[in-house]
Amino acid sequence: MLVTLSFDGTAYHGWQVQNNAVTVQSVVQDAVESVFGSRLNVTGCSRTDSGVHATMFCFHLDAPDMIPADRLPFALNARLPNDIVAIGCREVEPDFHARYSAKGKQYVYRMYDGEYADPLLDRYSLHHRGKLDENLLNKAARCYLGKHDFGAFCASGSSVEDHVRTVFESKVERHGRQVIFTVTADGFLYNMVRIMAGTLLEVAEGSIVAEDLPKIIESKDRSESGRTAPARGLHLKKVLY
Amino acid sequence: MLVTLSFDGTAYHGWQVQNNAVTVQSVVQDAVESVFGSRLNVTGCSRTDSGVHATMFCFHLDAPDMIPADRLPFALNARLPNDIVAIGCREVEPDFHARYSAKGKQYVYRMYDGEYADPLLDRYSLHHRGKLDENLLNKAARCYLGKHDFGAFCASGSSVEDHVRTVFESKVERHGRQVIFTVTADGFLYNMVRIMAGTLLEVAEGSIVAEDLPKIIESKDRSESGRTAPARGLHLKKVLY
Repeated sequence: MLVTLSFDGTAYHGWQVQNNAVTVQSVVQDAVESVFGSRLNVTGCSRTDSGVHATMFCFHLDAPDMIPADRLPFALNARLPNDIVAIGCREVEPDFHARYSAKGKQYVYRMYDGEYADPLLDRYSLHHRGKLDENLLNKAARCYLGKHDFGAFCASGSSVEDHVRTVFESKVERHGRQVIFTVTADGFLYNMVRIMAGTLLEVAEGSIVAEDLPKIIESKDRSESGRTAPARGLHLKKVLY
Repeated sequence: MLVTLSFDGTAYHGWQVQNNAVTVQSVVQDAVESVFGSRLNVTGCSRTDSGVHATMFCFHLDAPDMIPADRLPFALNARLPNDIVAIGCREVEPDFHARYSAKGKQYVYRMYDGEYADPLLDRYSLHHRGKLDENLLNKAARCYLGKHDFGAFCASGSSVEDHVRTVFESKVERHGRQVIFTVTADGFLYNMVRIMAGTLLEVAEGSIVAEDLPKIIESKDRSESGRTAPARGLHLKKVLY
Protein backbone atom coordinates (compact mmCIF):
# COMPACT_ATOMS: atom_id res chain seq x y z
CA MET A 1 0.00 0.00 0.00
CA LEU A 2 1.11 3.55 -0.70
CA VAL A 3 0.23 6.04 2.03
CA THR A 4 0.34 9.83 1.61
CA LEU A 5 1.17 12.08 4.56
CA SER A 6 1.29 15.79 5.31
CA PHE A 7 3.49 16.89 8.14
CA ASP A 8 4.80 19.92 9.98
CA GLY A 9 8.47 18.93 10.27
CA THR A 10 9.42 21.47 12.96
CA ALA A 11 9.59 18.90 15.76
CA TYR A 12 11.27 16.11 13.76
CA HIS A 13 14.78 15.16 12.72
CA GLY A 14 13.62 14.48 9.16
CA TRP A 15 11.99 11.29 7.89
CA GLN A 16 14.62 8.59 8.33
CA VAL A 17 14.87 6.60 11.58
CA GLN A 18 17.88 7.67 13.67
CA ASN A 19 19.20 6.66 17.04
CA ASN A 20 18.32 9.07 19.84
CA ALA A 21 16.19 11.39 17.68
CA VAL A 22 12.48 11.56 16.98
CA THR A 23 11.85 11.25 13.25
CA VAL A 24 8.66 11.15 11.19
CA GLN A 25 9.41 7.55 10.21
CA SER A 26 9.77 6.39 13.82
CA VAL A 27 6.47 8.01 14.79
CA VAL A 28 4.72 6.55 11.70
CA GLN A 29 6.16 3.08 12.39
CA ASP A 30 4.72 3.20 15.91
CA ALA A 31 1.29 4.14 14.53
CA VAL A 32 1.48 1.37 11.90
CA GLU A 33 2.47 -1.15 14.56
CA SER A 34 -0.47 -0.09 16.71
CA VAL A 35 -2.88 -0.54 13.76
CA PHE A 36 -1.58 -3.91 12.50
CA GLY A 37 -0.32 -5.39 15.76
CA SER A 38 3.15 -6.05 14.33
CA ARG A 39 6.22 -4.04 13.42
CA LEU A 40 6.12 -3.43 9.64
CA ASN A 41 8.77 -1.79 7.56
CA VAL A 42 7.72 1.54 6.03
CA THR A 43 9.78 2.94 3.14
CA GLY A 44 9.69 6.66 2.41
CA CYS A 45 9.97 8.52 -0.90
CA SER A 46 12.96 10.53 0.35
CA ARG A 47 14.91 11.23 3.52
CA THR A 48 14.01 14.91 4.05
CA ASP A 49 16.17 17.06 6.33
CA SER A 50 15.48 17.92 9.92
CA GLY A 51 12.75 20.57 10.12
CA VAL A 52 11.53 20.23 6.52
CA HIS A 53 7.75 20.15 5.95
CA ALA A 54 5.65 18.12 3.53
CA THR A 55 2.31 18.73 1.89
CA MET A 56 2.59 15.34 0.22
CA PHE A 57 5.08 12.73 1.41
CA CYS A 58 4.63 9.07 0.38
CA PHE A 59 5.69 5.80 1.93
CA HIS A 60 4.94 2.19 1.06
CA LEU A 61 4.46 -0.82 3.27
CA ASP A 62 3.55 -4.48 2.79
CA ALA A 63 0.56 -4.70 5.06
CA PRO A 64 -1.49 -7.76 5.99
CA ASP A 65 -4.94 -7.73 4.39
CA MET A 66 -6.73 -6.38 7.46
CA ILE A 67 -7.90 -2.88 6.63
CA PRO A 68 -9.12 -1.52 3.29
CA ALA A 69 -6.81 1.14 1.85
CA ASP A 70 -9.42 3.90 2.10
CA ARG A 71 -9.84 3.29 5.86
CA LEU A 72 -6.15 3.14 6.76
CA PRO A 73 -5.65 6.95 6.96
CA PHE A 74 -8.36 7.21 9.63
CA ALA A 75 -6.85 4.32 11.62
CA LEU A 76 -3.41 5.97 11.43
CA ASN A 77 -4.66 9.47 12.24
CA ALA A 78 -6.31 8.20 15.41
CA ARG A 79 -2.78 7.23 16.55
CA LEU A 80 -0.60 9.97 15.02
CA PRO A 81 0.20 13.32 16.67
CA ASN A 82 -1.50 16.41 15.18
CA ASP A 83 1.58 17.48 13.21
CA ILE A 84 1.54 14.31 11.05
CA VAL A 85 -1.63 13.50 9.11
CA ALA A 86 -2.30 10.60 6.73
CA ILE A 87 -4.29 12.09 3.83
CA GLY A 88 -4.60 9.15 1.46
CA CYS A 89 -3.81 5.50 0.76
CA ARG A 90 -4.07 3.21 -2.27
CA GLU A 91 -3.13 -0.33 -3.28
CA VAL A 92 -0.01 -0.60 -5.46
CA GLU A 93 1.73 -3.40 -7.40
CA PRO A 94 4.08 -5.60 -5.30
CA ASP A 95 7.16 -4.19 -7.05
CA PHE A 96 6.17 -0.57 -6.40
CA HIS A 97 8.76 1.37 -4.39
CA ALA A 98 7.97 4.77 -2.82
CA ARG A 99 11.43 6.05 -3.69
CA TYR A 100 12.54 4.23 -6.84
CA SER A 101 9.15 4.34 -8.61
CA ALA A 102 8.98 8.15 -8.25
CA LYS A 103 9.32 9.93 -11.61
CA GLY A 104 10.02 13.22 -9.92
CA LYS A 105 9.23 15.56 -7.07
CA GLN A 106 8.05 19.10 -6.63
CA TYR A 107 9.40 21.27 -3.83
CA VAL A 108 8.57 24.81 -2.77
CA TYR A 109 10.83 27.08 -0.78
CA ARG A 110 8.88 29.83 0.97
CA MET A 111 10.43 33.19 1.82
CA TYR A 112 8.91 36.51 2.89
CA ASP A 113 10.35 39.97 3.06
CA GLY A 114 9.85 43.14 5.09
CA GLU A 115 11.52 44.97 7.93
CA TYR A 116 9.96 42.82 10.67
CA ALA A 117 9.41 39.08 10.99
CA ASP A 118 5.82 37.78 11.04
CA PRO A 119 5.41 35.16 13.79
CA LEU A 120 2.41 33.69 11.92
CA LEU A 121 4.52 33.02 8.80
CA ASP A 122 7.82 32.23 10.48
CA ARG A 123 7.25 28.55 11.17
CA TYR A 124 6.89 27.69 7.47
CA SER A 125 8.71 30.47 5.66
CA LEU A 126 12.12 32.20 5.83
CA HIS A 127 12.16 35.88 6.76
CA HIS A 128 14.45 38.07 4.62
CA ARG A 129 14.65 41.64 5.82
CA GLY A 130 15.76 43.10 2.51
CA LYS A 131 13.37 43.48 -0.40
CA LEU A 132 13.01 40.34 -2.55
CA ASP A 133 12.58 41.29 -6.21
CA GLU A 134 10.47 38.40 -7.51
CA ASN A 135 11.14 39.30 -11.15
CA LEU A 136 14.90 39.18 -10.67
CA LEU A 137 14.65 35.95 -8.67
CA ASN A 138 12.36 34.39 -11.28
CA LYS A 139 14.89 35.24 -13.98
CA ALA A 140 17.62 33.60 -11.89
CA ALA A 141 15.45 30.55 -11.10
CA ARG A 142 14.88 29.94 -14.82
CA CYS A 143 18.64 29.23 -15.16
CA TYR A 144 18.08 26.00 -13.19
CA LEU A 145 15.78 24.63 -15.95
CA GLY A 146 16.98 21.72 -18.05
CA LYS A 147 19.35 18.77 -17.76
CA HIS A 148 22.55 19.70 -15.92
CA ASP A 149 25.22 18.28 -13.69
CA PHE A 150 24.12 19.90 -10.41
CA GLY A 151 27.35 19.15 -8.53
CA ALA A 152 27.52 22.81 -7.48
CA PHE A 153 24.15 22.32 -5.77
CA CYS A 154 24.94 19.18 -3.79
CA ALA A 155 26.10 19.27 -0.16
CA SER A 156 29.76 18.31 0.02
CA GLY A 157 30.26 14.90 1.58
CA SER A 158 27.33 13.33 -0.30
CA SER A 159 28.22 9.88 -1.62
CA VAL A 160 26.01 10.13 -4.72
CA GLU A 161 28.22 10.06 -7.81
CA ASP A 162 25.84 10.95 -10.62
CA HIS A 163 24.91 14.61 -10.22
CA VAL A 164 22.94 14.91 -13.46
CA ARG A 165 19.29 15.82 -12.92
CA THR A 166 16.60 17.32 -15.14
CA VAL A 167 14.66 20.30 -13.82
CA PHE A 168 11.20 20.59 -15.45
CA GLU A 169 9.91 23.63 -13.57
CA SER A 170 11.72 26.43 -11.77
CA LYS A 171 10.00 29.71 -10.99
CA VAL A 172 9.56 32.42 -8.37
CA GLU A 173 6.21 34.06 -7.63
CA ARG A 174 5.00 36.62 -5.11
CA HIS A 175 1.85 36.16 -3.00
CA GLY A 176 1.50 39.20 -0.74
CA ARG A 177 4.55 39.29 1.53
CA GLN A 178 5.54 35.77 0.49
CA VAL A 179 7.94 34.97 -2.34
CA ILE A 180 7.74 31.33 -3.34
CA PHE A 181 10.35 29.34 -5.28
CA THR A 182 8.85 26.25 -6.94
CA VAL A 183 11.09 23.59 -8.47
CA THR A 184 10.20 20.23 -10.05
CA ALA A 185 12.82 17.69 -11.19
CA ASP A 186 13.25 13.99 -11.90
CA GLY A 187 15.34 13.81 -8.74
CA PHE A 188 17.21 15.96 -6.25
CA LEU A 189 20.68 15.80 -4.74
CA TYR A 190 21.36 16.19 -1.04
CA ASN A 191 20.41 19.76 0.01
CA MET A 192 19.86 20.70 -3.66
CA VAL A 193 16.71 22.81 -3.17
CA ARG A 194 18.10 24.54 -0.09
CA ILE A 195 21.30 25.47 -1.97
CA MET A 196 19.22 26.63 -4.98
CA ALA A 197 17.14 28.81 -2.60
CA GLY A 198 20.24 30.09 -0.77
CA THR A 199 21.76 31.03 -4.13
CA LEU A 200 18.56 32.97 -5.01
CA LEU A 201 18.86 34.80 -1.67
CA GLU A 202 22.42 35.80 -2.59
CA VAL A 203 21.13 37.03 -5.95
CA ALA A 204 18.60 39.15 -4.00
CA GLU A 205 21.44 40.51 -1.84
CA GLY A 206 23.65 41.22 -4.85
CA SER A 207 26.53 38.93 -3.87
CA ILE A 208 25.72 36.66 -6.83
CA VAL A 209 24.78 38.09 -10.22
CA ALA A 210 21.83 36.34 -11.91
CA GLU A 211 23.68 36.27 -15.24
CA ASP A 212 26.45 34.19 -13.63
CA LEU A 213 24.15 31.30 -12.72
CA PRO A 214 24.81 29.24 -15.90
CA LYS A 215 28.56 29.56 -15.18
CA ILE A 216 28.03 28.53 -11.55
CA ILE A 217 26.08 25.44 -12.67
CA GLU A 218 28.81 24.62 -15.22
CA SER A 219 31.53 24.88 -12.56
CA LYS A 220 30.06 21.84 -10.69
CA ASP A 221 31.82 23.38 -7.72
CA ARG A 222 29.89 23.70 -4.44
CA SER A 223 31.99 26.69 -3.42
CA GLU A 224 30.68 28.70 -6.39
CA SER A 225 26.99 28.49 -5.44
CA GLY A 226 25.28 30.24 -2.52
CA ARG A 227 24.63 29.23 1.06
CA THR A 228 22.27 26.44 2.17
CA ALA A 229 18.97 28.13 3.09
CA PRO A 230 17.42 27.06 6.43
CA ALA A 231 15.20 23.97 6.46
CA ARG A 232 12.05 25.61 7.71
CA GLY A 233 11.18 27.29 4.39
CA LEU A 234 11.34 23.98 2.50
CA HIS A 235 8.22 21.96 1.70
CA LEU A 236 7.99 18.73 -0.27
CA LYS A 237 4.84 19.53 -2.23
CA LYS A 238 4.29 16.61 -4.57
CA VAL A 239 5.74 13.20 -5.49
CA LEU A 240 5.16 12.21 -9.12
CA TYR A 241 4.60 8.50 -9.87
CA MET B 1 4.52 55.22 23.44
CA LEU B 2 2.20 52.86 21.61
CA VAL B 3 3.84 49.61 20.51
CA THR B 4 2.33 47.19 17.97
CA LEU B 5 2.99 43.45 18.22
CA SER B 6 2.26 40.33 16.19
CA PHE B 7 2.25 37.06 18.05
CA ASP B 8 1.63 33.36 17.68
CA GLY B 9 -0.43 32.76 20.82
CA THR B 10 -0.10 28.95 20.87
CA ALA B 11 2.39 28.89 23.74
CA TYR B 12 0.78 31.64 25.85
CA HIS B 13 -2.05 31.92 28.35
CA GLY B 14 -3.36 35.03 26.63
CA TRP B 15 -2.09 38.58 27.10
CA GLN B 16 -2.82 39.40 30.75
CA VAL B 17 -0.26 38.62 33.48
CA GLN B 18 -1.31 35.61 35.58
CA ASN B 19 0.28 33.74 38.43
CA ASN B 20 2.00 30.51 37.39
CA ALA B 21 1.35 30.91 33.66
CA VAL B 22 3.43 32.38 30.84
CA THR B 23 1.52 35.20 29.17
CA VAL B 24 2.41 37.56 26.33
CA GLN B 25 2.34 40.48 28.75
CA SER B 26 4.79 38.86 31.16
CA VAL B 27 7.24 38.10 28.35
CA VAL B 28 6.87 41.64 26.93
CA GLN B 29 7.38 43.21 30.38
CA ASP B 30 10.64 41.27 30.76
CA ALA B 31 11.84 42.54 27.37
CA VAL B 32 10.82 46.12 28.24
CA GLU B 33 12.66 45.86 31.57
CA SER B 34 15.76 44.61 29.80
CA VAL B 35 15.65 47.57 27.35
CA PHE B 36 14.95 50.35 29.90
CA GLY B 37 16.64 48.88 32.97
CA SER B 38 13.50 49.23 35.08
CA ARG B 39 10.16 47.47 35.45
CA LEU B 40 7.60 49.54 33.49
CA ASN B 41 3.90 48.94 33.32
CA VAL B 42 2.61 47.91 29.89
CA THR B 43 -1.12 48.18 29.18
CA GLY B 44 -2.67 46.09 26.44
CA CYS B 45 -5.59 46.84 24.10
CA SER B 46 -7.45 43.72 25.26
CA ARG B 47 -6.96 40.58 27.34
CA THR B 48 -7.11 37.93 24.58
CA ASP B 49 -7.78 34.30 25.52
CA SER B 50 -5.20 31.58 25.92
CA GLY B 51 -3.99 30.42 22.49
CA VAL B 52 -5.40 33.35 20.49
CA HIS B 53 -3.11 34.91 17.86
CA ALA B 54 -2.62 38.54 16.84
CA THR B 55 -1.56 40.17 13.61
CA MET B 56 -1.81 43.55 15.36
CA PHE B 57 -1.95 43.87 19.10
CA CYS B 58 -1.21 47.22 20.77
CA PHE B 59 0.05 48.21 24.19
CA HIS B 60 1.09 51.54 25.69
CA LEU B 61 3.79 52.34 28.20
CA ASP B 62 5.22 55.48 29.79
CA ALA B 63 8.85 55.07 28.86
CA PRO B 64 11.82 57.23 29.86
CA ASP B 65 13.16 59.30 26.98
CA MET B 66 16.01 56.89 26.14
CA ILE B 67 15.19 55.34 22.79
CA PRO B 68 13.46 56.92 19.78
CA ALA B 69 10.10 55.29 19.01
CA ASP B 70 11.23 53.97 15.63
CA ARG B 71 14.17 52.08 17.23
CA LEU B 72 12.23 50.50 20.09
CA PRO B 73 10.86 47.54 18.02
CA PHE B 74 14.43 46.47 17.14
CA ALA B 75 15.53 46.74 20.78
CA LEU B 76 12.54 44.68 21.90
CA ASN B 77 12.86 42.07 19.13
CA ALA B 78 16.47 41.41 20.14
CA ARG B 79 15.05 40.28 23.51
CA LEU B 80 11.70 38.71 22.56
CA PRO B 81 11.21 35.05 21.57
CA ASN B 82 10.47 34.36 17.88
CA ASP B 83 6.74 33.96 18.42
CA ILE B 84 6.30 37.57 19.60
CA VAL B 85 7.49 40.36 17.29
CA ALA B 86 7.27 44.14 17.77
CA ILE B 87 6.31 45.56 14.37
CA GLY B 88 5.86 49.26 15.12
CA CYS B 89 5.97 52.04 17.71
CA ARG B 90 4.88 55.66 17.83
CA GLU B 91 4.64 58.51 20.34
CA VAL B 92 1.14 59.15 21.70
CA GLU B 93 -0.48 61.86 23.87
CA PRO B 94 -0.09 61.34 27.65
CA ASP B 95 -3.80 60.57 28.06
CA PHE B 96 -3.78 57.90 25.33
CA HIS B 97 -4.84 54.46 26.56
CA ALA B 98 -4.31 51.31 24.46
CA ARG B 99 -7.67 49.92 25.55
CA TYR B 100 -9.94 52.91 26.21
CA SER B 101 -8.76 54.99 23.24
CA ALA B 102 -9.58 52.16 20.81
CA LYS B 103 -12.55 52.97 18.55
CA GLY B 104 -12.93 49.36 17.53
CA LYS B 105 -11.25 46.10 16.65
CA GLN B 106 -11.20 43.68 13.75
CA TYR B 107 -10.97 39.94 14.34
CA VAL B 108 -10.79 37.04 11.93
CA TYR B 109 -11.76 33.48 12.73
CA ARG B 110 -10.09 31.00 10.37
CA MET B 111 -11.62 27.62 9.56
CA TYR B 112 -10.89 25.08 6.84
CA ASP B 113 -12.83 22.10 5.61
CA GLY B 114 -12.10 18.72 4.04
CA GLU B 115 -11.95 15.09 5.07
CA TYR B 116 -8.43 15.29 6.53
CA ALA B 117 -6.71 17.88 8.71
CA ASP B 118 -3.78 19.84 7.23
CA PRO B 119 -0.91 20.04 9.74
CA LEU B 120 0.40 23.16 7.99
CA LEU B 121 -2.90 25.02 8.57
CA ASP B 122 -3.86 23.50 11.88
CA ARG B 123 -1.92 25.80 14.18
CA TYR B 124 -3.81 28.90 13.03
CA SER B 125 -7.11 27.57 11.70
CA LEU B 126 -9.88 25.24 12.88
CA HIS B 127 -10.42 22.04 10.90
CA HIS B 128 -14.07 21.20 10.14
CA ARG B 129 -14.52 17.87 8.43
CA GLY B 130 -17.90 18.65 6.94
CA LYS B 131 -18.25 20.98 3.99
CA LEU B 132 -18.43 24.68 4.92
CA ASP B 133 -20.82 26.50 2.58
CA GLU B 134 -19.33 29.99 2.55
CA ASN B 135 -22.43 31.54 0.97
CA LEU B 136 -24.71 30.17 3.68
CA LEU B 137 -22.23 31.22 6.39
CA ASN B 138 -21.87 34.69 4.88
CA LYS B 139 -25.67 35.08 4.91
CA ALA B 140 -25.67 34.04 8.58
CA ALA B 141 -22.73 36.32 9.44
CA ARG B 142 -24.57 39.33 7.99
CA CYS B 143 -27.18 38.93 10.77
CA TYR B 144 -24.54 40.08 13.27
CA LEU B 145 -24.32 43.51 11.55
CA GLY B 146 -25.64 46.57 13.39
CA LYS B 147 -26.20 47.72 16.96
CA HIS B 148 -27.50 44.93 19.16
CA ASP B 149 -27.47 43.67 22.73
CA PHE B 150 -25.07 40.74 22.26
CA GLY B 151 -25.87 39.09 25.61
CA ALA B 152 -26.42 35.79 23.76
CA PHE B 153 -22.79 36.04 22.54
CA CYS B 154 -21.12 36.74 25.88
CA ALA B 155 -19.57 33.98 28.01
CA SER B 156 -21.71 33.42 31.09
CA GLY B 157 -20.00 34.65 34.25
CA SER B 158 -18.72 37.83 32.60
CA SER B 159 -19.12 40.84 34.88
CA VAL B 160 -19.69 43.34 32.06
CA GLU B 161 -23.22 44.73 32.33
CA ASP B 162 -23.67 46.62 29.08
CA HIS B 163 -23.88 44.09 26.25
CA VAL B 164 -24.72 46.57 23.49
CA ARG B 165 -22.12 46.68 20.74
CA THR B 166 -22.15 47.88 17.14
CA VAL B 167 -20.84 45.51 14.46
CA PHE B 168 -19.60 47.41 11.36
CA GLU B 169 -18.40 44.45 9.30
CA SER B 170 -19.32 40.78 9.39
CA LYS B 171 -18.63 38.48 6.46
CA VAL B 172 -17.43 35.03 5.47
CA GLU B 173 -15.14 34.41 2.50
CA ARG B 174 -13.43 31.34 1.05
CA HIS B 175 -9.70 31.25 0.13
CA GLY B 176 -8.93 27.75 -1.18
CA ARG B 177 -9.60 25.32 1.66
CA GLN B 178 -9.89 28.14 4.16
CA VAL B 179 -13.15 29.83 5.13
CA ILE B 180 -12.56 33.08 6.96
CA PHE B 181 -15.03 34.94 9.18
CA THR B 182 -14.14 38.64 9.55
CA VAL B 183 -15.87 40.83 12.11
CA THR B 184 -15.26 44.47 13.08
CA ALA B 185 -17.05 46.18 15.97
CA ASP B 186 -16.70 49.11 18.37
CA GLY B 187 -16.03 46.58 21.10
CA PHE B 188 -16.36 42.90 21.91
CA LEU B 189 -17.75 40.99 24.89
CA TYR B 190 -15.91 38.12 26.55
CA ASN B 191 -15.65 35.23 24.03
CA MET B 192 -17.95 37.10 21.62
CA VAL B 193 -16.09 36.25 18.38
CA ARG B 194 -15.56 32.62 19.39
CA ILE B 195 -19.29 32.23 20.15
CA MET B 196 -20.17 33.98 16.85
CA ALA B 197 -17.84 31.54 15.02
CA GLY B 198 -19.17 28.54 16.95
CA THR B 199 -22.71 29.59 16.00
CA LEU B 200 -21.66 29.76 12.33
CA LEU B 201 -20.24 26.23 12.66
CA GLU B 202 -23.62 25.05 13.98
CA VAL B 203 -25.30 26.74 11.02
CA ALA B 204 -22.92 24.75 8.77
CA GLU B 205 -23.89 21.56 10.59
CA GLY B 206 -27.63 22.35 10.40
CA SER B 207 -28.26 22.45 14.14
CA ILE B 208 -28.94 26.20 13.92
CA VAL B 209 -30.95 27.69 11.04
CA ALA B 210 -29.45 30.88 9.56
CA GLU B 211 -32.90 32.54 9.51
CA ASP B 212 -33.14 32.12 13.29
CA LEU B 213 -30.06 34.24 14.02
CA PRO B 214 -31.96 37.54 14.52
CA LYS B 215 -34.20 35.73 17.04
CA ILE B 216 -31.14 34.26 18.79
CA ILE B 217 -29.58 37.74 19.08
CA GLU B 218 -32.88 39.15 20.37
CA SER B 219 -33.12 36.43 23.04
CA LYS B 220 -29.97 37.80 24.79
CA ASP B 221 -29.72 34.25 26.10
CA ARG B 222 -26.34 32.50 25.93
CA SER B 223 -28.05 29.11 25.78
CA GLU B 224 -29.69 30.02 22.44
CA SER B 225 -26.42 30.65 20.55
CA GLY B 226 -23.86 28.05 19.43
CA ARG B 227 -20.77 26.64 21.09
CA THR B 228 -17.57 28.56 21.80
CA ALA B 229 -15.20 27.79 18.91
CA PRO B 230 -11.60 26.86 19.91
CA ALA B 231 -9.10 29.67 20.46
CA ARG B 232 -6.60 28.66 17.81
CA GLY B 233 -8.69 29.89 14.85
CA LEU B 234 -9.01 33.38 16.37
CA HIS B 235 -6.76 36.25 15.31
CA LEU B 236 -6.90 39.87 16.45
CA LYS B 237 -6.25 41.52 13.12
CA LYS B 238 -6.51 45.25 13.73
CA VAL B 239 -7.07 47.80 16.51
CA LEU B 240 -8.72 51.01 15.33
CA TYR B 241 -7.68 54.26 17.04
